[in-house]
Amino acid sequence: MIDVGPAPEPVRLADANDVLAPLRARFALPPALIYLDGNSLGAPPRTTAARVRQTIEAEWGGDLIASWNKHDWIGAPQRVGAKIARLIGAKATEVVVADSTSVSLFKLLAAALAHQSGRHTILTEPDNFPTDGYIAEGVVGLFPDRRLRAVPAEDLEAAIDTDTAVVLLTQVHYKSGRRWDMARLTQAAHRAGAVILWDLSHSTGAIPVDLGAAGADLAVGCGYKYLNGGPGAPSYLYVAERLQADLTSPLSGWMGHAAPFAFAPDYQPASGIDRFLTGTPPILSLVALEEAIDLFLDADMAAVAAKAEALSDLLIAEMEPLCAEHGFTLATPRRFAERGAHASFTHPHAYEICQALIAEGVVGDFRAPAILRLGPVPLYTRFEDVWRAVQVLRVVMEERRWDRPQYRVRARVT
Amino acid sequence: MIDVGPAPEPVRLADANDVLAPLRARFALPPALIYLDGNSLGAPPRTTAARVRQTIEAEWGGDLIASWNKHDWIGAPQRVGAKIARLIGAKATEVVVADSTSVSLFKLLAAALAHQSGRHTILTEPDNFPTDGYIAEGVVGLFPDRRLRAVPAEDLEAAIDTDTAVVLLTQVHYKSGRRWDMARLTQAAHRAGAVILWDLSHSTGAIPVDLGAAGADLAVGCGYKYLNGGPGAPSYLYVAERLQADLTSPLSGWMGHAAPFAFAPDYQPASGIDRFLTGTPPILSLVALEEAIDLFLDADMAAVAAKAEALSDLLIAEMEPLCAEHGFTLATPRRFAERGAHASFTHPHAYEICQALIAEGVVGDFRAPAILRLGPVPLYTRFEDVWRAVQVLRVVMEERRWDRPQYRVRARVT
Repeated sequence: MIDVGPAPEPVRLADANDVLAPLRARFALPPALIYLDGNSLGAPPRTTAARVRQTIEAEWGGDLIASWNKHDWIGAPQRVGAKIARLIGAKATEVVVADSTSVSLFKLLAAALAHQSGRHTILTEPDNFPTDGYIAEGVVGLFPDRRLRAVPAEDLEAAIDTDTAVVLLTQVHYKSGRRWDMARLTQAAHRAGAVILWDLSHSTGAIPVDLGAAGADLAVGCGYKYLNGGPGAPSYLYVAERLQADLTSPLSGWMGHAAPFAFAPDYQPASGIDRFLTGTPPILSLVALEEAIDLFLDADMAAVAAKAEALSDLLIAEMEPLCAEHGFTLATPRRFAERGAHASFTHPHAYEICQALIAEGVVGDFRAPAILRLGPVPLYTRFEDVWRAVQVLRVVMEERRWDRPQYRVRARVT
Repeated sequence: MIDVGPAPEPVRLADANDVLAPLRARFALPPALIYLDGNSLGAPPRTTAARVRQTIEAEWGGDLIASWNKHDWIGAPQRVGAKIARLIGAKATEVVVADSTSVSLFKLLAAALAHQSGRHTILTEPDNFPTDGYIAEGVVGLFPDRRLRAVPAEDLEAAIDTDTAVVLLTQVHYKSGRRWDMARLTQAAHRAGAVILWDLSHSTGAIPVDLGAAGADLAVGCGYKYLNGGPGAPSYLYVAERLQADLTSPLSGWMGHAAPFAFAPDYQPASGIDRFLTGTPPILSLVALEEAIDLFLDADMAAVAAKAEALSDLLIAEMEPLCAEHGFTLATPRRFAERGAHASFTHPHAYEICQALIAEGVVGDFRAPAILRLGPVPLYTRFEDVWRAVQVLRVVMEERRWDRPQYRVRARVT
């Protein structure tokens, strides 16, 4: 990595005073790497491999089919859900873990749309994380006379009306990092008689989330970003207790049945949150996620949010001279109350710059058409990492290191 | 375990002549256990834990987000699908792995129903594996004027008519073990203009499956039974090449998009089998499944089917005296061509008998209302295991060991 010298005193002090600093040692990160992409794929807790190995060798290998009871595999979706509930201000009986985020979103969106008869619109914003929009398209395609309507963020609240069945919003935008006021939008939806569904994929583990205080209806979230559950970790879904009896998932698989092991001929949904389960839970992925959530439960969530704010404030402040001198533009709201933990910067050469940074040991990511996204993570990013990343970027810009042919080749996944 | 003495010569000879015998050493099974429930949860390959650990520590921990390209995580659903294709007579481009069996079934059933406009019925048999029926209920609930019709097996072929949109059958029945003639039923469906969807959960890895030869349309199957992919392993789904362009999944997530990483605003399905993917693939569970499939690919599938026949023939033959003397009734067709690899026996005290057998180190399972199901598995069950299991059962019956209070308590999962 480019030598940028020692970090200045205030940065070193911030690390010295960081109450979450000890948590970094609980993650396995390559020592020479500055990883600012935990908002795309979180880092592995050091104990995840051992936990999964234990599940494979001692549980599966030792007790085989009996493990479903003996090691409570069968209760894993609810057990892990109850732990995640503590991170998002939900009750233990309002969250389950299962399936991909896309599938969870489909279940809740379809259930809500079926429930909101007489209302025709799913209202969302354009340029949302694509799978959310794609899934919403798939859902409305199943309901005659329903439609998906995308309204720019600044007009969205005013667009909620008596024809709105569901408002679908990602609390923190995956590119811009802009944060919706959850309580305010939830109230606006309720005033119009609409249901609101929050995608928390870029929120949980980074900013304060309190679904209960906001009076939220429905939510889904990703297990492999800030939650560190591993690649493709199962998602979680939340249904407020007061709505559980009124909504039923069209993905009515046996795990959502009132008595899954009675093998009854007809589907009878379970009475609580269990009705939103579908197939057999993916145990290996679930225990990896649980291991990561257990680590989270050792952290004070207020401290997590405070560090997210301080890290991203430092990032934005350090980037100011580069914005002035090297053509970057901050694409993220300046105030933490209006954004998530990551910061995005537009630049005409964002793709090549991102590749050059990676080659220098600083991992952020590129988002089309021209965004360099940098995501410090409260649980394992040091203030010094943020400072150092920006100094490396400065050298990349000053020496035009990004302007090399190998950085123009686009990879399949970025 | 009850001492039943040495196995007779023909049984020992069968093991000595078993070309698949070396494969047993590649599974981690408790040495004292006779495991006849691999049709519910397959045994762990010895190398699975190391493979998952490699994925967590070296890939995820070493390369983090870059692993999606560097270790081809992003290609895992297609890569593992192509390997499974070799076990089921499909082309490499006709199978992908993703989601639970229930979710895969939902995708294909909904896609087929949408395609078959003007036809109103999903035709299936009663007493199918419950989640198949439950999912079908969920799907028809989304389509006005569509219905689910269950017709007894003996009348089913004749019931396929011009109103039949989809015929949904599990090739090998989870309880009785009865096997449908795949080619025959597929032809019957096609003659009536219907599409047929096969659930292969109790077939693949146990009996010969050749979707191509049968002219099959659609199929799904479980990854954690005979395939040994681990608890809740992802399922596979098959769509015949000729149908891929006509069917679209309502679970239209980003992994099924023509260009997932272009982050385009509108959903455009991928051109081939990829369009049936939905969310981010569960990599830890996927690599565990791949490890198990790789082991399968070292076996001659004709030998696998031949051993399944020989093992289950031995089981049924050894059980004959117990049927005569202890009230068991064979609930499975006698001829292998008409059944799968497991054999089921009804008995008024099947539940308690199953528990007593487990306590004696012989693991089968109970299925309501009164079935003892025993599933020898070609890859790791020895002929001696089958013989010994029946002798232990004989002692359990002769000494009425099943008639103890602790065996009457029903566990949550059996």
